Amino acid sequence: MCHSLSSCRLMMALSVFVLGTAPTAFAQDPLHSWNEGSAKAAILDFVDKTTAEDSDDFVAVEDRIAVFDNDGTLWPENPLPFQLIFAIDELKRLAPKHPEWKQDKLLAAALSGDVATLKEDVMGSLKQLLIATHSGITTDQFNQRVEDWMATAKHPRFDRHYTDLVYQPMLEVLVYLRANGYRTFIVSGGGADFMRVWADQTYGIPSEQTIGSIGEVKFEIRDGVPVLIKQAAISFIDDKEGKPVAIHRQVGRRPVVAFGNSDGDKAMLEWTTMARSPSLGVIVHHTDAEREYAYDKSPQSSGKLIEALADAPKRGWVVVDMAKDWNQVFPDENAPSAGAAARMDLAGTNWLVEDIAGRGVIDRAQTTIEFSEDGTVSGNTAVNRYSGKVSIKGDSIDFGPLITTRRAGPPAVMDQEQKFLAAMERVKRVRVDENGLLHFGGEDGEAVIRASKIQ
Amino acid sequence: MCHSLSSCRLMMALSVFVLGTAPTAFAQDPLHSWNEGSAKAAILDFVDKTTAEDSDDFVAVEDRIAVFDNDGTLWPENPLPFQLIFAIDELKRLAPKHPEWKQDKLLAAALSGDVATLKEDVMGSLKQLLIATHSGITTDQFNQRVEDWMATAKHPRFDRHYTDLVYQPMLEVLVYLRANGYRTFIVSGGGADFMRVWADQTYGIPSEQTIGSIGEVKFEIRDGVPVLIKQAAISFIDDKEGKPVAIHRQVGRRPVVAFGNSDGDKAMLEWTTMARSPSLGVIVHHTDAEREYAYDKSPQSSGKLIEALADAPKRGWVVVDMAKDWNQVFPDENAPSAGAAARMDLAGTNWLVEDIAGRGVIDRAQTTIEFSEDGTVSGNTAVNRYSGKVSIKGDSIDFGPLITTRRAGPPAVMDQEQKFLAAMERVKRVRVDENGLLHFGGEDGEAVIRASKIQ
Repeated sequence: MCHSLSSCRLMMALSVFVLGTAPTAFAQDPLHSWNEGSAKAAILDFVDKTTAEDSDDFVAVEDRIAVFDNDGTLWPENPLPFQLIFAIDELKRLAPKHPEWKQDKLLAAALSGDVATLKEDVMGSLKQLLIATHSGITTDQFNQRVEDWMATAKHPRFDRHYTDLVYQPMLEVLVYLRANGYRTFIVSGGGADFMRVWADQTYGIPSEQTIGSIGEVKFEIRDGVPVLIKQAAISFIDDKEGKPVAIHRQVGRRPVVAFGNSDGDKAMLEWTTMARSPSLGVIVHHTDAEREYAYDKSPQSSGKLIEALADAPKRGWVVVDMAKDWNQVFPDENAPSAGAAARMDLAGTNWLVEDIAGRGVIDRAQTTIEFSEDGTVSGNTAVNRYSGKVSIKGDSIDFGPLITTRRAGPPAVMDQEQKFLAAMERVKRVRVDENGLLHFGGEDGEAVIRASKIQ
Repeated sequence: MCHSLSSCRLMMALSVFVLGTAPTAFAQDPLHSWNEGSAKAAILDFVDKTTAEDSDDFVAVEDRIAVFDNDGTLWPENPLPFQLIFAIDELKRLAPKHPEWKQDKLLAAALSGDVATLKEDVMGSLKQLLIATHSGITTDQFNQRVEDWMATAKHPRFDRHYTDLVYQPMLEVLVYLRANGYRTFIVSGGGADFMRVWADQTYGIPSEQTIGSIGEVKFEIRDGVPVLIKQAAISFIDDKEGKPVAIHRQVGRRPVVAFGNSDGDKAMLEWTTMARSPSLGVIVHHTDAEREYAYDKSPQSSGKLIEALADAPKRGWVVVDMAKDWNQVFPDENAPSAGAAARMDLAGTNWLVEDIAGRGVIDRAQTTIEFSEDGTVSGNTAVNRYSGKVSIKGDSIDFGPLITTRRAGPPAVMDQEQKFLAAMERVKRVRVDENGLLHFGGEDGEAVIRASKIQ
């Protein structure tokens, strides 16, 4: 309660604050793994100009579609595209039951580790391997196999799980675009079924926004249970001119942002950017043999980049020089990925608030946030206790109405309590950074609350 | 400002109200075109039990997928499926330039109005007509043709535009499901390209959630402009066992709700409901020759319903008896549709608030809401003026932070002002009802504000 006119004024101001314009909060660098330079500036500028309502280049929210190639754009494609490595591992696992595979040139090469033969015909090998390892099972069985493999297999050079080898700078682009109202889609030559098992958790991209090559499936009822059986036939290859076609089929709108890394993405970049303004086309150029791989016209596996690179200047496509533009390639070991950060198990964790809307906190007035196992959140605001429900999905977080005890305290502490409760109302995004700090962001990605873990 | 302790208390209470639990608001009947009965009860019960967090049948938001057949489920399919009528009209319009069409049996039948011949082979006719009228043009040109036709063509029996002939009770189901966190998808044998032109505006279902049969398209660059050319080949027919396949391709998750009306929807109903709990399968049974059409085993055109109806009892599918269960079939003339209501041009309209959260208003303290042409909203709260930004998409509405003048008034009027501003914060849905009243609803579809138009 307000015991003086000044605290009454404060209370009034606060009640309006909740309804009214929020103070401008300092924003962290959303692309902190990108070095300052023309590529980073182009991305930031594009998002700024397409989301400022008074901009001539404003893009309505429903048209904010961003498409991303996967292999070589969001994660590596060396020594072979990862799905091909999965298929080879599956082939070896299943080979004892299939002696006939040794009679097939490409399958025999895959089984004997004869990578040179496979590389002579990457798409052909992939197709043959997919038929051998991706068909005759239900979609549920297939999902389980992919999940099992992802949980155990490691990259031969980097010795990390494949889903940990996504490009940190691209994770930041995905999160940044989504925080600005863009919907992010994968448009990859890889199999849609393969990617959907882990894309949500890894990139925060749900199944209906994960577009890829498609194998035939057949609907059946087996013992009263409806199933989809994966067939040997491939019905659509989502590559080259197939990419605009796939975008048309699944999205039904032209994107305004496209990221790719090879000539296989050229048509998608053209469809997104030609005769369309504003639009942003970006090519990730692999120039970093030390931290990743360096290739363009003569790639070790897939990812040939000649024509799209030659066209980049006249099309206005931004070319990212991986060695120069990225100060980090992969997420730190043990760091949660974009999706994993969002979905990390906060249950049972307890946090001390370090900052509210960029204004710090009063040292002696500790505010805490505790996530219980049953989906509730609670804590202290120095004077009072609060509690409520919380739901987390992807990197989205939503607190239900918070109920508080009603003790009074010193004005400065009450002020902070009100600021904290008001800030909690604005929280829409969650992530845990590489230093283990918890960040709550607002609708537009602005920093709202930062907290450190209480051991 | 608060001039007495009691008004201070009020202010404090209000500031907590904004953060805290909202009062229970009375809810309108969300399915008011449905008569009380087992079908309506089944839909309401299912949504209740799958959205109550303490329910054993709770379904997580990401799994709340609802799929709807279109022809015969969301709108009629008589005297012929509407896309076929469009194709015939296009055929006639284009015939002078194509004398060769008279040599083709089905095309000649279509041109001469020989419906009997077309009905002998509905799918074959559709295919032939689609090839003649839906190919060789860009997707943009095709969209324009559909738009032009929809704006002018009228149904031969009902003399109304086709997009006005959607089933009012089904519009209510779509809105009700979405208000409860469900994502609604069309899964239709009709062409995806055809439906996407009007589905968003008519049903509030965006292009990426509109799944249908697919014609081949080819990517080309013509005079520096990238285009997709519609081809004569049909690459996927989204009917019967194709429906679960299409859902897998585009959504990548099994739905929990499916609505259909024919044996063409049986596989989709099975995929949704068999060995899956909770789930809801619904069949719209056309029993109403007077207000619409009556058919099942011997339909006039498409929509044969024998097997799915026979299986309904053992599968637990709800069968809607159109004549008994629906008190209204089509929207009132001049009533905006679900999508149109949402997207109606509110610019330049001015409204008088009649009710706030089910508690009425003080007669002498008039509160107004005015939508300007530039996307801002403003009005009076009896004492003060407020203004802010508003964005409307589908039936979703979102008010930005509202800025107000700061004059004080009598406590009861200030109380109402606070209630109004707090209520505006909760508004998430908009519709204009058949009486022209404006309704703002909250996250869960509960009534928040009602207003009448100021002439």
